[in-house]
Amino acid sequence: MTSPATPAYRRLSVEQRRGQLIEAALGLFAHRTPEDVSLDDVAGAAGVSRPLVYRYFPGGKQQLYEAALRSSAEALNRCFAEPLAGPPMERLGRVLDRYLLFVEGHGAGFSALLRGGSVVETPQTSAIVDEVRRAAAEQILLHLGVERPGLRLDMLVRTWIAAVEAASLIWLGGGRRPPAAELRDWMVDHLVALLTVTGAGDEETRRVVGRLLAQERPGGPVAALAHRLIPVVGEAAHLL
Amino acid sequence: MTSPATPAYRRLSVEQRRGQLIEAALGLFAHRTPEDVSLDDVAGAAGVSRPLVYRYFPGGKQQLYEAALRSSAEALNRCFAEPLAGPPMERLGRVLDRYLLFVEGHGAGFSALLRGGSVVETPQTSAIVDEVRRAAAEQILLHLGVERPGLRLDMLVRTWIAAVEAASLIWLGGGRRPPAAELRDWMVDHLVALLTVTGAGDEETRRVVGRLLAQERPGGPVAALAHRLIPVVGEAAHLL
Repeated sequence: MTSPATPAYRRLSVEQRRGQLIEAALGLFAHRTPEDVSLDDVAGAAGVSRPLVYRYFPGGKQQLYEAALRSSAEALNRCFAEPLAGPPMERLGRVLDRYLLFVEGHGAGFSALLRGGSVVETPQTSAIVDEVRRAAAEQILLHLGVERPGLRLDMLVRTWIAAVEAASLIWLGGGRRPPAAELRDWMVDHLVALLTVTGAGDEETRRVVGRLLAQERPGGPVAALAHRLIPVVGEAAHLL
Repeated sequence: MTSPATPAYRRLSVEQRRGQLIEAALGLFAHRTPEDVSLDDVAGAAGVSRPLVYRYFPGGKQQLYEAALRSSAEALNRCFAEPLAGPPMERLGRVLDRYLLFVEGHGAGFSALLRGGSVVETPQTSAIVDEVRRAAAEQILLHLGVERPGLRLDMLVRTWIAAVEAASLIWLGGGRRPPAAELRDWMVDHLVALLTVTGAGDEETRRVVGRLLAQERPGGPVAALAHRLIPVVGEAAHLL
């Protein structure tokens, strides 16, 4: 046991060192697949010895990868936090801006994780990813004013989150085009569209759409979408 | 070497046996995760000895799993084939009916494969899944009358395919509710919605939507959606 003065200092130092190693690993995972990152690389990037990395992560790369993934999951959860004020789709736009910055900053690791087939993928890493998805769905439902969604609305929100993930991967894989702001707007339009067609057949979603539209404003993204939609929708006149 | 009369018979028999083992494996993977299926189970289900399974699949469960996955990929590709005639969204509905039957019949294996974190998941299995996704995207573009999609339309189709996968997994995980026919209609509505909002900002998609709507008919699914949308869209009047 140590003297009364040291434990707090030591604990902090352990946490700082751990954080430094995780940061170094995240920096490497952002540009290379987990397969192509060795513990020597992490030690080199952090400016420490390989045995020191092993002292903090005796489980080796797998343990370090999981710690890096947990740290990313926390960062993502922070992205999702948004005050419950103002037009809801503008709030969503701000969340998506932060999310896309995260995706851009974690490119290779983000892709490797979600694309599957990676050697570091385990039931544990899948559980962490599922936890992030659950947190994202909870946040969206919070902004939609729904606590316990019915079948359709629950499926809608989770499906849209999967669509956002897929679009992010396509975006990363395709040289980050279109610009992040356009991708964000498209993702918002996608949710509005999905809510609207689902609301055309599901009473709960219909109420959500009504509440949502009432909170949007003439100069906002939903109004802009509505204006742009008029001529496209006109082409369906022969069906009515 | 064998006598001239036997090779054709032998080759057929080998193929039949291989097919029988793959069918037995698919039957097991449909109800249990790959982790919970042993080669003994497969041998038992096929009514053969374990050494016989190893003779056909010397790479053991991993090789058998990949063969079963390839067989599923071929079955899925057959689901996607649909004549280029009639209203496009009705064609899509028929493809989705076949797809959902496949999903229902391959439940556990389908989920394990797409959820990630399975021990049998490798870069090879991910490549097979990606190939199915590419084939699905090609088929959809064929029905939309597009050979080389631009950035937005390509992202739209691939994102919608990911959304369909996600919705299928949620559907399997949640006791297959709503009924398959409702899920199919929702997936069609989802694509129509996504095409429409994307067409509101992208010229190529706009042309696709125009062509598509011109081929739909008053009693079809797009017309039904349009009718149901009128009161929902009315709630956006204050934004225009």
